[in-house]
Amino acid sequence: MKRLGTAIILSGPSGVGKSTVCSFLFKKYAELKFSVSCTTRAPRPGEVDGVAYHFLTIDDFKRRIDAGDFLEWAEVHGNYYGTLKQEVKPRVINGQDIILDIDVQGMRLVRKSVLAEPEWGPSVISVFLAPPSFAALEQRLRGRGTETEESIQKRLGNAAKELAAWREYDYIVVNDVAEQAANRLDAILTAAHARTATCLEAPWLA
Amino acid sequence: MKRLGTAIILSGPSGVGKSTVCSFLFKKYAELKFSVSCTTRAPRPGEVDGVAYHFLTIDDFKRRIDAGDFLEWAEVHGNYYGTLKQEVKPRVINGQDIILDIDVQGMRLVRKSVLAEPEWGPSVISVFLAPPSFAALEQRLRGRGTETEESIQKRLGNAAKELAAWREYDYIVVNDVAEQAANRLDAILTAAHARTATCLEAPWLA
Repeated sequence: MKRLGTAIILSGPSGVGKSTVCSFLFKKYAELKFSVSCTTRAPRPGEVDGVAYHFLTIDDFKRRIDAGDFLEWAEVHGNYYGTLKQEVKPRVINGQDIILDIDVQGMRLVRKSVLAEPEWGPSVISVFLAPPSFAALEQRLRGRGTETEESIQKRLGNAAKELAAWREYDYIVVNDVAEQAANRLDAILTAAHARTATCLEAPWLA
Repeated sequence: MKRLGTAIILSGPSGVGKSTVCSFLFKKYAELKFSVSCTTRAPRPGEVDGVAYHFLTIDDFKRRIDAGDFLEWAEVHGNYYGTLKQEVKPRVINGQDIILDIDVQGMRLVRKSVLAEPEWGPSVISVFLAPPSFAALEQRLRGRGTETEESIQKRLGNAAKELAAWREYDYIVVNDVAEQAANRLDAILTAAHARTATCLEAPWLA
């Protein structure tokens, strides 16, 4: 059956466990991956261009903003971050899936971008990964042992704002046990593949 | 987490295997069941009232039509068939799931009914169960060995009409191998439970 792939917008507060949950799906689906974002910040030791990020100069980044190349972008503390349309659209048109690890702001912008492109718009679904409780999130952030108190307080403040936007998403998955959350995300992906809106032809003709 | 259950409208041509596919889900989810329709036709030997159908007199049926008790109803060859709102709404409001085995006409009527009731409208999803091919459907109908040629031709004619409406459904599941189709339907149900539209409160408050 010819059909669009699925682009999953996956948001959730810092520390909620997006990478852990997705790692179960990446094991199961060899072709599934996170989209690679662009950034103007300097590569950290060990970060490979095109793997961790596409590293762009500020001039390049701005040129691509003007060219309409980004599905979403934002400036954070003087650095630019964004997702190229080219990173997502060709994959889903080709029937493949991809996960966009972006925040609430990014989700809103991607939705707006794809609304203007009905040819692949139905491929996009949004999932909010939530902690079982606010206390659990705080515990996880502290458990990392790598953050200053100031950084933890800032992340918790941001988390409260992100959590408030959960109703804007199509789906919500509570990350109580990572493998179970992954199974629910897996079901959401499997169900997404069965949506008639993404079928390019009647299945029984294929 | 407090949330609405899911009412799955399941349509598909006669012989496509709805009962077989659902039997896998009924084994897995003890509380899941088909909604029991009402009919004015006489019970066949062995049919128990309230199990196979709710058997109503024509007067009773018409009274309940006038009272707005039906989510959908139709007259077929002089007999009335229909699904009571009472059969579905209290269950999904209570967080339970139910499957409505109804045709395309019924799907349209149910959608219209629940649109008028936003309080439980988001609980309804629609799934079209399709044969892998038209030839496969014909083969299954003939394989039963219980139908006259006239009846088979009539069912195939109806099937062609039903198949043409597949895009009106939220999801399409091809019944190639019944257990695999059941797994896809299972994923659709699991995903349905994660829809933010059916959450009555933020999950992390529960």
